[in-house]
Amino acid sequence: MSVLQQAAQARGASIDLAAATRAEKDAALLRMADRLVERADDIVAANAVDISTARNANLSESMIDRLALTPARVAAMADGLRQLAALSDPIGDVVRGSTLANGLELRQVRVPFGVVGIIYEGRPNVTADAAGICLKSGNAVLLRGSSSAASSNAAIVSVLRKAVADTGLPADCIQLLDSTTRDSVKELMRARGLVDVLIPRGGASLIKTVVEESTVPVIETGVGNCHVYVDEDADLEKALAIVMNSKTQRLSTCNTAESLLVHSSIADSFLPLVIEELTAAGVTVHGDPRVRNYSDDVVPATEADWGTEYLSADISAAVVDTLEDALDHIRRYGTGHTEAIVSESMTATRRFAARVDAAAVMVNASTRFTDGGEFGFGAEIGISTQKLHARGPMGLPELTSTKYIVTGSGHTRR
Amino acid sequence: MSVLQQAAQARGASIDLAAATRAEKDAALLRMADRLVERADDIVAANAVDISTARNANLSESMIDRLALTPARVAAMADGLRQLAALSDPIGDVVRGSTLANGLELRQVRVPFGVVGIIYEGRPNVTADAAGICLKSGNAVLLRGSSSAASSNAAIVSVLRKAVADTGLPADCIQLLDSTTRDSVKELMRARGLVDVLIPRGGASLIKTVVEESTVPVIETGVGNCHVYVDEDADLEKALAIVMNSKTQRLSTCNTAESLLVHSSIADSFLPLVIEELTAAGVTVHGDPRVRNYSDDVVPATEADWGTEYLSADISAAVVDTLEDALDHIRRYGTGHTEAIVSESMTATRRFAARVDAAAVMVNASTRFTDGGEFGFGAEIGISTQKLHARGPMGLPELTSTKYIVTGSGHTRR
Repeated sequence: MSVLQQAAQARGASIDLAAATRAEKDAALLRMADRLVERADDIVAANAVDISTARNANLSESMIDRLALTPARVAAMADGLRQLAALSDPIGDVVRGSTLANGLELRQVRVPFGVVGIIYEGRPNVTADAAGICLKSGNAVLLRGSSSAASSNAAIVSVLRKAVADTGLPADCIQLLDSTTRDSVKELMRARGLVDVLIPRGGASLIKTVVEESTVPVIETGVGNCHVYVDEDADLEKALAIVMNSKTQRLSTCNTAESLLVHSSIADSFLPLVIEELTAAGVTVHGDPRVRNYSDDVVPATEADWGTEYLSADISAAVVDTLEDALDHIRRYGTGHTEAIVSESMTATRRFAARVDAAAVMVNASTRFTDGGEFGFGAEIGISTQKLHARGPMGLPELTSTKYIVTGSGHTRR
Repeated sequence: MSVLQQAAQARGASIDLAAATRAEKDAALLRMADRLVERADDIVAANAVDISTARNANLSESMIDRLALTPARVAAMADGLRQLAALSDPIGDVVRGSTLANGLELRQVRVPFGVVGIIYEGRPNVTADAAGICLKSGNAVLLRGSSSAASSNAAIVSVLRKAVADTGLPADCIQLLDSTTRDSVKELMRARGLVDVLIPRGGASLIKTVVEESTVPVIETGVGNCHVYVDEDADLEKALAIVMNSKTQRLSTCNTAESLLVHSSIADSFLPLVIEELTAAGVTVHGDPRVRNYSDDVVPATEADWGTEYLSADISAAVVDTLEDALDHIRRYGTGHTEAIVSESMTATRRFAARVDAAAVMVNASTRFTDGGEFGFGAEIGISTQKLHARGPMGLPELTSTKYIVTGSGHTRR
């Protein structure tokens, strides 16, 4: 079946799904969870096919570990679906309401988008997560996963579709697209009118391709060249803890810090400390000449370093003479994801928070907090780095649109 | 100067504009209004050049009237700016806020987009409107108007920029792009990174081009193939008033009704009335065979009629046997702008409102009410027919994004 045919099926299913009650959707989510657990052996067996293909292709052991499913990992997927069932339903929320001067009653109500396309790489658990989040928010979903997880994804989607149908909702609201060819991505990007929004989740090159080529509206996610700026009025103990946590708590996430900016007036006291601790943690510091004055462990930073999202045990570091210089640097190299300031100064933190153009600004807190779970959203489909529609972690409300319902009694306009 | 250079200037100006207070922005708006009035003679003189060019090009008198500026029309533009000054400022509004379990304080705050591009046709008053709305919402604006209004727009923008600078805000936050070549539209559509959002206002073909070719995120506006569905339980007097108002109150607006659907059980009583009244008002009814049974004045509707936004004294009309048939018809031919139902039945109106996929659903009210002014928004930059970011009339808040500001005291993630 072609992508357009699957998209048309999804659109058909989305009409009924949009009208489903929360009780119906939650019943489907719980059924999906139960069936995943019951069918865990089949899913693990299907996963073994992907693992075997990956080994034959000489994928790294860390890649294979990301791909691998165990009964425990399947159970975790099921738990994720049960947690979604417990979240409140954004559909039908009245966002704005008033009675106009002429007596017309105006309500702006949350409605599903309709059909959401998700292009993702890597872990097969995203398949269940994305399907669940879309179902809870009343959207049909077209899933275009990684070819490396094709067999696992097929098994998971088969179980989920059957479970949805068991509870009376349309199975066609969950569609798995062919992942063996790039054509399915191309067709998806051109399915304007059938697909309401496309969310690419993955590396920078995937996101760039989708943003540039899609005629379907896109929500850009995830590229994070995040900075920590340590101000002249920073508490250096907090600064050290925040830099270390932002860089090393997990290396390969989009909210990991990739660049450190230190005010020149505290460089002498702070840089030796932080370089030593970063180096001890196995992080290579790529520094400008002033940073390199403090340690032979620092390697020279090239122009490319400032714009690099390492996703590895590397960090770029520069000394800046003013808060304005830090802002200029971030304006030039930042990706609008998360920028942090460490400072005890009200003036500095207020100015930084007001002037930095990013989805999230951390004041005396680790960049790692930009996350739907940490923000208390309960579920996250990705972190938007664009300004349109959603910015920052996207939970269930960010997967909705709105509709005005205007009620009169024969009202006409003068 | 190239579009990219102008966009870069606008981006530079947008940084200071984003940090401007409401008082500063309102002072600029009032100065802009005063200066327009003071310079009205110069603006009218510049307009005379456009009028003369239009006459030489044999533009219709109605087009020329749309283009023409008088001191009274300039004064109306100034009044629009004064009204904007009186509206509350969306920037800085806290959209969501909480204290997380770990004590982090989370605030989601409205911020400007940064740089907004507006491509528009026709009337030069849009120039002042759009500049004012963008300024009030803290956005720099790139204005790409119609070549037919080039001289008028240049005069208006010159006055506005000077007025902005007089009050200490950056004049570069208002930029007029070259309207004599299509290249400026193309460059604007490719200025991703410099321009945050593009809003095309104009005919269907302009909007289609921008939507398909722009790499800058687009908010689609305005195409409205709006239906009025007269249900079997309609009050026929209300139905007649609503159809007439929806179709004839103004012919060429996007919220004008272009198609009439009548339930078969009331066709006998309603269609003769409405056809007679529409015909008397000079409207040509393009009907399906069942509608044509009622009057020789009805011309045959072709398949193309159902999908046509006439913007003229024409309406398509069909008889449907059920509410579901009406919904199917609207799903197939509607553009997601405004759809109306006339019915006294709670069941029918609830089902229609829930199932119709449009920016606005009118229940016993004219389609003409889908309008920022009518909704009480005070200002409108257009009516979005897309689901991403903004749907329906877009006021000041719809010209903003948000930013999370997260404040801690040295918080790190476990």
